[in-house]
Amino acid sequence: MDEILRTIVDKTPGAKAAILMGFDGIAVEQWVAPQYEQDTDIESMAMEFSFRFLELRDAASSLEMGQISDITLKAEYGTVIVRVLSQEYFVAVVLETAAHMGKGRWILRSQAAALTDDLYGN
Amino acid sequence: MDEILRTIVDKTPGAKAAILMGFDGIAVEQWVAPQYEQDTDIESMAMEFSFRFLELRDAASSLEMGQISDITLKAEYGTVIVRVLSQEYFVAVVLETAAHMGKGRWILRSQAAALTDDLYGN
Repeated sequence: MDEILRTIVDKTPGAKAAILMGFDGIAVEQWVAPQYEQDTDIESMAMEFSFRFLELRDAASSLEMGQISDITLKAEYGTVIVRVLSQEYFVAVVLETAAHMGKGRWILRSQAAALTDDLYGN
Repeated sequence: MDEILRTIVDKTPGAKAAILMGFDGIAVEQWVAPQYEQDTDIESMAMEFSFRFLELRDAASSLEMGQISDITLKAEYGTVIVRVLSQEYFVAVVLETAAHMGKGRWILRSQAAALTDDLYGN
């Protein structure tokens, strides 16, 4: 599982870290690129967002939009891309800039099935 | 202002509607493509999300990510792209599918300055 997170970070230009977390804010596994280890606390960040993501998910569901599969947030000093894996888990990647957001989303999507398999032991 | 919202919808393939709203959930102006008028209540949708966006903004700010400028949500039955215009206002576009999300984000960005000018009367 950490190998998959590492692959996601390595293949996405500008990616600082990736984390697999429950919507309850408890991290399962994370990978931080060595050059960002000093200044990247992806666990605190994902924890802070996890409850908000849950609320977005509930809002979408109440609006009959179905399940949310992807969330992206672009801020001044960082971009977060999220892929929802199941009712319980999501994977988030933090990028330095938004320049490679599209590629990041694609890589995240391409690795999502492998992460889900690892999570649920298929 | 409604002309700009209409331009955003017309130029984005698969766009159903666009709305300019305050983070307090009060709509300023909206445009719904004629063929989607029956089944698209973008005002309720944006209202439902506005408070969640505010919370995401506060979370990003407390995480020292700076101001959030863009949010995207992809769900089973619709995609929402959001551009934050100021502390008070955002513009949201609802797409039928995520196929043209990248183009939609670009068009939204290209029209954001004109919307801000209209809002603040520059």
